[in-house]
Amino acid sequence: MNVNELRFAKRFDGITGSAIREIFKLLARPGMISFAGGNPSEAALPDEEMAWIAADVLKKDGKRILQYGATEGYPPFLEALKAYVGPHFGIDMEKNGVLPTTGSTQGMQLLLSALIDPGDVILVEDPTFLGNMQSMRLYQAKLVPVKSDDEGMDTDDLERKIREYHPRMIYTIPTFQNPTGCTLGLERRKKIAALAEEYGVVVAEDDPYHDLRYTGQELPTIKSFDKAGWVVFLGSFSKVISPGLRVGFLAAEPGILRKCVIAKQGSDLHTGLLNQAMCAEYIRRGLLEPHIRSILKGYADQMNTMLDELAHMKTVASFTRPEGGLFIFASLDEGLNATKLLPKAVERCVAYVPGTHFYPEGGHENTFRLNFSKSTSEEIRRGMRLLEETFSRA
Amino acid sequence: MNVNELRFAKRFDGITGSAIREIFKLLARPGMISFAGGNPSEAALPDEEMAWIAADVLKKDGKRILQYGATEGYPPFLEALKAYVGPHFGIDMEKNGVLPTTGSTQGMQLLLSALIDPGDVILVEDPTFLGNMQSMRLYQAKLVPVKSDDEGMDTDDLERKIREYHPRMIYTIPTFQNPTGCTLGLERRKKIAALAEEYGVVVAEDDPYHDLRYTGQELPTIKSFDKAGWVVFLGSFSKVISPGLRVGFLAAEPGILRKCVIAKQGSDLHTGLLNQAMCAEYIRRGLLEPHIRSILKGYADQMNTMLDELAHMKTVASFTRPEGGLFIFASLDEGLNATKLLPKAVERCVAYVPGTHFYPEGGHENTFRLNFSKSTSEEIRRGMRLLEETFSRA
Repeated sequence: MNVNELRFAKRFDGITGSAIREIFKLLARPGMISFAGGNPSEAALPDEEMAWIAADVLKKDGKRILQYGATEGYPPFLEALKAYVGPHFGIDMEKNGVLPTTGSTQGMQLLLSALIDPGDVILVEDPTFLGNMQSMRLYQAKLVPVKSDDEGMDTDDLERKIREYHPRMIYTIPTFQNPTGCTLGLERRKKIAALAEEYGVVVAEDDPYHDLRYTGQELPTIKSFDKAGWVVFLGSFSKVISPGLRVGFLAAEPGILRKCVIAKQGSDLHTGLLNQAMCAEYIRRGLLEPHIRSILKGYADQMNTMLDELAHMKTVASFTRPEGGLFIFASLDEGLNATKLLPKAVERCVAYVPGTHFYPEGGHENTFRLNFSKSTSEEIRRGMRLLEETFSRA
Repeated sequence: MNVNELRFAKRFDGITGSAIREIFKLLARPGMISFAGGNPSEAALPDEEMAWIAADVLKKDGKRILQYGATEGYPPFLEALKAYVGPHFGIDMEKNGVLPTTGSTQGMQLLLSALIDPGDVILVEDPTFLGNMQSMRLYQAKLVPVKSDDEGMDTDDLERKIREYHPRMIYTIPTFQNPTGCTLGLERRKKIAALAEEYGVVVAEDDPYHDLRYTGQELPTIKSFDKAGWVVFLGSFSKVISPGLRVGFLAAEPGILRKCVIAKQGSDLHTGLLNQAMCAEYIRRGLLEPHIRSILKGYADQMNTMLDELAHMKTVASFTRPEGGLFIFASLDEGLNATKLLPKAVERCVAYVPGTHFYPEGGHENTFRLNFSKSTSEEIRRGMRLLEETFSRA
């Protein structure tokens, strides 16, 4: 039989990989100004320190680091995590455990594996993160958008939809959301924790941008209001140390955590021990907090430059004003189509992601997402003017 | 609602985690001689070289290594892999691609994700690898054992079962199988490749022990006989460089590979770039082949010591005589129960894995798996005598 006749699993029905993948391949072109990714800036990647740390941990504990480890985590990292995560995110470490994950991408997958049968409903922000929507669809979940605004999910609409759809999960990125950059308000955070307990729905609180705040007041996590164990916190070191190391974690009550451990046994057995050891040592040496402080100033300048440029663009109808994170979300004048304009922008050597891909039900063709962390202020000014040229000639 | 009332996904029905987990926790006890794991020996873990290599690759390419990478792989590793995998495993790299995976554990998961809907049949050796059986069950596959002997899967029984069950996958560990240590014969390898094409069934060829041959002649992979693209080869650097790094790969024709890439986007986005870079550099410096040669002699001695001891054990009715790998599989006299005897063995500070856990349909309570790579010859002699004491007093 010809292998082209092979039938794949039903979970791939309707999943073709990203529509914008072909265009993204052009982004490696020299001179391209890309606002399309979600990459940290080069300056934010501590390569020199990590070269020393990698050698040091391998010299000190190499035989254990290169050997098989426990799915539950490399002990020095677990210790560092528990000491860090509890106070930093307001998580009660008496009632919750942590599990190192291979990026928070894996944390999401483990949770989907633990909870989702085909057809189960997940309530999500509208718009929400593209990558995790694809993960949810691979678990054959039905995604139902909850009305969202500048303060995140509308909790009245959320409660209505909990009653109507009996969801298995509520997925939220509460802080400097991807793609909008918006932050869930304090009262809504409390309300979501309360609704989770009242209706018995797991909340996946995906909070990778938490520490990238440039202005305003830090808000407590949803998890910090969780008394009953219905909130699972997904954390990541991708935005504050390095995405290439693929180290994240999941904090949850013991029953859910145990299912995630079993799912992880079949996923990658354990997260690389060197990766865990390097993050542990980076934290243990007290490098994390000063490193975060050192990157905030640059990111804030880049964001403000981009916001200034947006304010002067005649084709831009509106845009979000985030207090942190990596993204700004903008709308073009009605009738302009960000997907159709993308190839023209790329021709001019500037790129973004069309907003429609972040909407569970599509539409919103005039929206687009901009990332400001990967480009210098100079590149941002130049890139935004190229965008204005592109849009105004449409 | 109390979180104890949370209903998990159906894929966890009947999956309770390993029955022997509680006993395994005792294995960290000082003085324990463990034949239970599948760990490389400490001497086989190149910690000193890796400390240098980690620092070198981070100094040379640290900004790229710490940044996000492509799901398809870190370019220098892909290059090294293609050059290595093609000639080493007899894989046609014109017709096949490779994908770095976070251990071959993940390779298996990606393939299950690509192919298996609940209720689909996977034909497996009898016995077969515990860990991947659990992965298959988490994908709600139905596991059907194929009659197996000292030369692996009986291909007549395999063909009968293909006709009867219309499986979506055939899973085999052809070389120094886990748990038996047995190797699939040459004619059977050819036959499996032919059956896969004839009936349109994907073969997952899981070959992590391939290079650990102590005696006899190397056999070509099943994949080397695959003209039509039905065989997927799962490789790993866990047994020849380091399991803690979690680096494996998958070689497959483009259509299957593409689905695995999409599944990997939602699994961990990409394998750690430092992990890929270190393996690439280890290969590039020509360290891999001499390293493998350097560990074979010790492993061969350890295996032969264990085989000698087994030959003198009155309670052991039979055992396999592998030509390589990490495991020997043995049977006690009828009536002796290896699961019931395990706590008594652990009391005497020696451990193994009861064989019943490797049989898809259970039973075979008198069998057990022994690992010889993690213990010195001296420990093996002592441990085997403790086992004989345990078994003979039962």
